[in-house]
Amino acid sequence: MGDTVEKPNTHVDDPGWIEWLVTQHPHDIAVEIRYLEIIVIRRILGKLPNAVTSDVILELPPHVQVELFESMRVSRLSGIIGEMFSDDVADLLGQISAERLEKIMEQLPPTEAREIADLLKYEEDTAGGIMQTEVISIPESLTISETIEKLRGMEDLMETEGLFYIYVTDENDRLRGVLRVRDLLFSKPHLKVRDIMIREVRAVSVRADQEEIARMFKHYNFPVVPVVDDFQRLRGIVTSDDVMDIMEEEATEDMQRMIGLSGEESTNTPWKEAVQKRLPWLYVNLLTAFMAGAVVAMFESTIAQYAVLAVFLPIIAGQGGNAGTQVLTIVVRSLALGDIPDNGQRSIILKELVVGVLNGLAIGIVVGVIAWFWKGNITLGVIVFAAMVLNMVGAGLAGVVIPFGLKALRIDPALASAIMLTTVTDVVGFFLFLGFAALALTMFPLPA
Amino acid sequence: MGDTVEKPNTHVDDPGWIEWLVTQHPHDIAVEIRYLEIIVIRRILGKLPNAVTSDVILELPPHVQVELFESMRVSRLSGIIGEMFSDDVADLLGQISAERLEKIMEQLPPTEAREIADLLKYEEDTAGGIMQTEVISIPESLTISETIEKLRGMEDLMETEGLFYIYVTDENDRLRGVLRVRDLLFSKPHLKVRDIMIREVRAVSVRADQEEIARMFKHYNFPVVPVVDDFQRLRGIVTSDDVMDIMEEEATEDMQRMIGLSGEESTNTPWKEAVQKRLPWLYVNLLTAFMAGAVVAMFESTIAQYAVLAVFLPIIAGQGGNAGTQVLTIVVRSLALGDIPDNGQRSIILKELVVGVLNGLAIGIVVGVIAWFWKGNITLGVIVFAAMVLNMVGAGLAGVVIPFGLKALRIDPALASAIMLTTVTDVVGFFLFLGFAALALTMFPLPA
Repeated sequence: MGDTVEKPNTHVDDPGWIEWLVTQHPHDIAVEIRYLEIIVIRRILGKLPNAVTSDVILELPPHVQVELFESMRVSRLSGIIGEMFSDDVADLLGQISAERLEKIMEQLPPTEAREIADLLKYEEDTAGGIMQTEVISIPESLTISETIEKLRGMEDLMETEGLFYIYVTDENDRLRGVLRVRDLLFSKPHLKVRDIMIREVRAVSVRADQEEIARMFKHYNFPVVPVVDDFQRLRGIVTSDDVMDIMEEEATEDMQRMIGLSGEESTNTPWKEAVQKRLPWLYVNLLTAFMAGAVVAMFESTIAQYAVLAVFLPIIAGQGGNAGTQVLTIVVRSLALGDIPDNGQRSIILKELVVGVLNGLAIGIVVGVIAWFWKGNITLGVIVFAAMVLNMVGAGLAGVVIPFGLKALRIDPALASAIMLTTVTDVVGFFLFLGFAALALTMFPLPA
Repeated sequence: MGDTVEKPNTHVDDPGWIEWLVTQHPHDIAVEIRYLEIIVIRRILGKLPNAVTSDVILELPPHVQVELFESMRVSRLSGIIGEMFSDDVADLLGQISAERLEKIMEQLPPTEAREIADLLKYEEDTAGGIMQTEVISIPESLTISETIEKLRGMEDLMETEGLFYIYVTDENDRLRGVLRVRDLLFSKPHLKVRDIMIREVRAVSVRADQEEIARMFKHYNFPVVPVVDDFQRLRGIVTSDDVMDIMEEEATEDMQRMIGLSGEESTNTPWKEAVQKRLPWLYVNLLTAFMAGAVVAMFESTIAQYAVLAVFLPIIAGQGGNAGTQVLTIVVRSLALGDIPDNGQRSIILKELVVGVLNGLAIGIVVGVIAWFWKGNITLGVIVFAAMVLNMVGAGLAGVVIPFGLKALRIDPALASAIMLTTVTDVVGFFLFLGFAALALTMFPLPA
């Protein structure tokens, strides 16, 4: 709790501001500069040491990172890359142009270049794609005191959160066990590592899906998980801060995909990219909206006769859509969190049937009575009531069946599910309501 | 990678199944039993030692936890509570009836009861409410070798992830610094703790909001954060697995609240509770749907004359709603992740204005042309086009302005925001479209 320096007004030409800025935490520097022009960002980064610059870059929005990696001097970049974890470097390099990538790789020390090239081969959202390769491993034949001596030489590696565990490998690099740092503190110095290590290590494959890994961390409360290849060789570790990033990514993705977004948009996404990413989904939605419109068109003559029906269209569709989206949101989220067992689907469908009937009755009665008294016609009331109840029950079922169906087809249960849902509720709702109306009104005509 | 025992078919009366079950990881046991009746769950838990039972209970859905804590023998419960971290106990006890709470507290050892009573005083979603009070602290006057001796007596406490740091306090329990375990490994035994500890410790107040803490972990990559009271006394720690839980909770809350859900529902929520929680929001939505209906009612005579207009109502409202929800989802999520700086709102509004105009033109032209050719009437095409463009621009702006406005009013930016948004897009869309139609069609009548 030392002196706090007052923050001067943001002004890139003010040397006082720059002086203040470079003393801040990398995350806070990134927040200050992320909306500035690339040329200005580069000028500010030029005043920072490589170690700080690397941390600042990692906190900037993806499109700024890419622009920097495309435009900064390669010699500076290789210095910055030397300060980053291999997984972060691979993420960044995975996004830039091929020529640029080649130029940068040429400048890197051969072992580092090889490591990064290895990482670039893994899919972005697998354990291989998110792991860091900086990991402490020791042979099982060392004694405790030899291990401590060896670790002293790796103090650098021990800087980070992930390295509270020391992995034990055999002569073929295969993972055999794990030591906690406290085992080193409290064990007799002459004991062998193989005698005190924990042999049951839960490791994940380099090809494991990131969502699965996040679930493992959550359920088993692991702080770190080792990653092995097909030959059980230790290749890296995934740490809890990687997992936090995954969890946020996956939650954002689910929210966005449900309503027809790429899953990767943020308020930082440039407008051009935003248009490109959203427009295709808007066209998909348009197609489904035309389906709803077509149902209305089928009953144009009924509406021409009783225009009051048009008043209830948005009410019936709106309530169905809202009730269905409630269910959909819960189911999509529960699927993402792994909260639904394979044999649990039937009981959820049953529950939503009950909830749909009850909520449908509660809403249907109110709307029906209002319709009845407004136009003084009980037929209209009954039509509205019946259509509302049935649409809300159908909406609830659609909210369960759509994500379960997508999952069974091995498609992301979130994908455009809200668009599909409102299509169902619009089409079914309009068809029921206008169909009942056409039928009933031929028998019991309204006062026109 | 030992032998794997094959999983027998689930059957609660099968002794073989029970035998298999009790050898599983607590999380997996919870998954197997969570849908069984309470009486059966209790029978199975009866076969497990306290330490395992406590972990299983923590993995069960909240309503099952509460039922267990209300119904299990108090003597057994006090044994189970002894195996839990204080923060988990406080969470559980915060949900049960007052009489039951009193009975359980009587059975606990006095120091533990006092600690839990202290935790129960904090708001659930503050640092005080989520921290665990099990924390290792040592006086700054110890030497390294004295510290190692002291820690040996606390091996139990060092079991868990959170305890890779050792906090250093003065004679008044005030936090003075922190030691990493590696400092103990590599430092000379006669050095004093105060000479090697890190003095700059970022601590949070017991009253800090959980969302803020999650943001700190994310931005600064902390593995653990110490929690202090108003006198800077060390009271506990928040660990990364607490933060993962918070992040999932907050993401779920945002997704749910946008569309009118409590923020706490899951597929495990019983149907009664689900109806109670969803119905009030459905009534709110109904009110807004009636507003949209009222706009249509204003133009009933126009629709009676040109029923084709009713066909385009769901198309214009649907596109506006979808485009607006796209923007809303991005903004709500970015606000939750702390990605929008205070001075960043203007540029986001501007961007969405541009995107809204472009997407509006792209969709409006298609719909306008279809309307024109379908009815062979260019007036209808122009009306549809103009209403669509304006509604989509308005939708984009509403998608930004609604969450920013809620935030300015110190209301959760997610709260019912999707309901508000579709109200705006329905009301504005219908009014523009039917208003233009009423105006234009008096001048250029359609073929009826």
